[in-house]
Amino acid sequence: MAIDHQRFIDDLHSLRAFGASGVGKGVIRPAYSEADIAARKWLAGRMTEAGLTPHFDPVGNLFGLADGPSLLMGSHSDSQPEGGWLDGALGVIAALEIARSSDRPISVVSFQDEEGRFGVTTGSAVWSGGLPLDKADALTDGAGIRFDAARGAMADLSQGFVDPNRFSGFIEMHIEQGPTLDASDETIGVVTDIVGIRDMTISFEGQQNHAGTTPMHLRRDAFQALSLFNTQLNDRFRNVVTPQTVWTIGRVDLHPNASSIVPGRVRFTMQWRDGDADRLARMEEIIRVTAQEVADDLGTNLDYGTLLGLEPVAMDLTLRTALETGAEQVAPGKWRRMPSGALHDATNVSRLMPVAMLFVPSINGISHAFAEDTDEADLIAGLNVLDHAVRSLSG
Amino acid sequence: MAIDHQRFIDDLHSLRAFGASGVGKGVIRPAYSEADIAARKWLAGRMTEAGLTPHFDPVGNLFGLADGPSLLMGSHSDSQPEGGWLDGALGVIAALEIARSSDRPISVVSFQDEEGRFGVTTGSAVWSGGLPLDKADALTDGAGIRFDAARGAMADLSQGFVDPNRFSGFIEMHIEQGPTLDASDETIGVVTDIVGIRDMTISFEGQQNHAGTTPMHLRRDAFQALSLFNTQLNDRFRNVVTPQTVWTIGRVDLHPNASSIVPGRVRFTMQWRDGDADRLARMEEIIRVTAQEVADDLGTNLDYGTLLGLEPVAMDLTLRTALETGAEQVAPGKWRRMPSGALHDATNVSRLMPVAMLFVPSINGISHAFAEDTDEADLIAGLNVLDHAVRSLSG
Repeated sequence: MAIDHQRFIDDLHSLRAFGASGVGKGVIRPAYSEADIAARKWLAGRMTEAGLTPHFDPVGNLFGLADGPSLLMGSHSDSQPEGGWLDGALGVIAALEIARSSDRPISVVSFQDEEGRFGVTTGSAVWSGGLPLDKADALTDGAGIRFDAARGAMADLSQGFVDPNRFSGFIEMHIEQGPTLDASDETIGVVTDIVGIRDMTISFEGQQNHAGTTPMHLRRDAFQALSLFNTQLNDRFRNVVTPQTVWTIGRVDLHPNASSIVPGRVRFTMQWRDGDADRLARMEEIIRVTAQEVADDLGTNLDYGTLLGLEPVAMDLTLRTALETGAEQVAPGKWRRMPSGALHDATNVSRLMPVAMLFVPSINGISHAFAEDTDEADLIAGLNVLDHAVRSLSG
Repeated sequence: MAIDHQRFIDDLHSLRAFGASGVGKGVIRPAYSEADIAARKWLAGRMTEAGLTPHFDPVGNLFGLADGPSLLMGSHSDSQPEGGWLDGALGVIAALEIARSSDRPISVVSFQDEEGRFGVTTGSAVWSGGLPLDKADALTDGAGIRFDAARGAMADLSQGFVDPNRFSGFIEMHIEQGPTLDASDETIGVVTDIVGIRDMTISFEGQQNHAGTTPMHLRRDAFQALSLFNTQLNDRFRNVVTPQTVWTIGRVDLHPNASSIVPGRVRFTMQWRDGDADRLARMEEIIRVTAQEVADDLGTNLDYGTLLGLEPVAMDLTLRTALETGAEQVAPGKWRRMPSGALHDATNVSRLMPVAMLFVPSINGISHAFAEDTDEADLIAGLNVLDHAVRSLSG
């Protein structure tokens, strides 16, 4: 059966109806909300209609299982507290359309809580074994509700965890959530790797003092330490980073944070992301050397919090080549290879099987907002690339 | 009658007994607290014993009035929430000792709420006409208590405002509250001027974004704007400032202040102090030009809050010369002329009459803390300088 573009677009709009809110095509459908559970039940029905066997696992991940061994495709259907209609939903509905049209057995998945109401990509983290269920159960959301209480709302649907060995690989289509494709007027991004992340808190402790009576040369000003660190770091990173590398000081807590007091302490976050684990390590070395030099120069103490890290995940070459071949057929000269700067369910699934990812443009790079959108022609192009790729893999 | 060093030291310790707390010689005696009011009643008694007429005004300023025209001396006897035993108290008790020993008529004052439970130097600001009483009454402290309610606790003592025309001038002795005299092993600082202050809030608004998917060259990061502004400002100020000039970024509020989000907005305080109003204006010009350049370079919006300012106050030359002559007699070669980087009641009183100020060292520059202290020999040296100065003015 050929893929049906209109059915695909119609299903996207039908899914959007669960939790449709806000301006534009906004959606409020966070994990385990009434709208989320209703959407999953509707999806299960569509899976049945497509000849798949719906299967809810204990954390609410919904699989539509093909008989026997199959390729798994999908993403997630939960949304941010104020989210768009395509973030996650696109990958699920595209997978459903491919499963309906492909000669090859395709299973579909909608992972639960990708958007991190409780953790980060919680549903796929538990399924992949990256996050033990008993640890997940102790997680709480912003309102203090525990994960075990939240997933209890779907307990009547649970049929146990799906054996991952029935799947030969996983392909996830997703909106880019960044400006690269939109800015370069390209249609498709084939993901080379999902970047690794390092994140740590750094503190400089100087001397809190009177901002009127303390001469500049006797100050040990924690904010000045932060500013000097940032300036030197930007300079020193230049020889190490690529255009894909990113780093961010996103949180700054100054103490006592008063206009008439020389700041005595600053605690801030330093986060950096890159597809190459060696580069992440070189950046860490530069960060630590620079922070120590600043602390020595300004006479402040230096303290580090725990270094949190997720390793880069390279996409499987066979699956990725199939997507690249499809991209060149569907959008010749209008696609690129690119890393994913954001985390996705595919990161977790890569523990279990080969994975690959496909991006379509986000208009103005906007995501995690009601205003998120993608040109309908690009949505259909993405679906066509998947179709080509799956056919080439079957051949 | 000669000055009595022991009586002076004993009175300082007696005053400290009201609110004595914490480590070292710490004191908790904020304005209108039980300890503060009890201390003022004790002071009124000591004034009577010294032949002065105690007089409480409607905001709780306590005067010990000499008959007829007189020179006014004093400071304040309220403390910081966690204060030292000398901040303010020293100037009041020294004035009392000079009033007792001098042949010339000396009146004594302890201003109320110098430490700013409600505003800044509130009691002397109201008396000097700088702050209308009805405006002061609407001020609230950190707990939401209004100034009019707080001063109501002393309403039974009030005898109306004192006519400032009965005073020929005002001399205030105070601890330095900075490290300059202690670091240079000097005994006395004669204040040349109380520096002026400029204080304003500056905001850079860029674009809040995903810290993983937003490439560095497409970011409009508000924290980076702040850091660049600070770096350029430090560089550009170099040709304009003196060793006495100070500037501080003491408060930084980043939005949304999360490790995985490129900061979209920063609001921060920029405060600068100098004894020269022209220099304050040149610094403001550099601040505004630099902020605009940074905003243009990084594509952020720029916004300013209200510019708050207090003009520099030069000390009266006659009174100051008397203090300098006294300093050279008491501590030859061990004194200096210096600006006051901190605000004092003398700033307000200068609206009404000639003023001058004298500093003694703060050990390690510490103040607004229980650990604040001054060597007893330095306290006595300061008293002796006042004694010499008042005698020379009488002659």
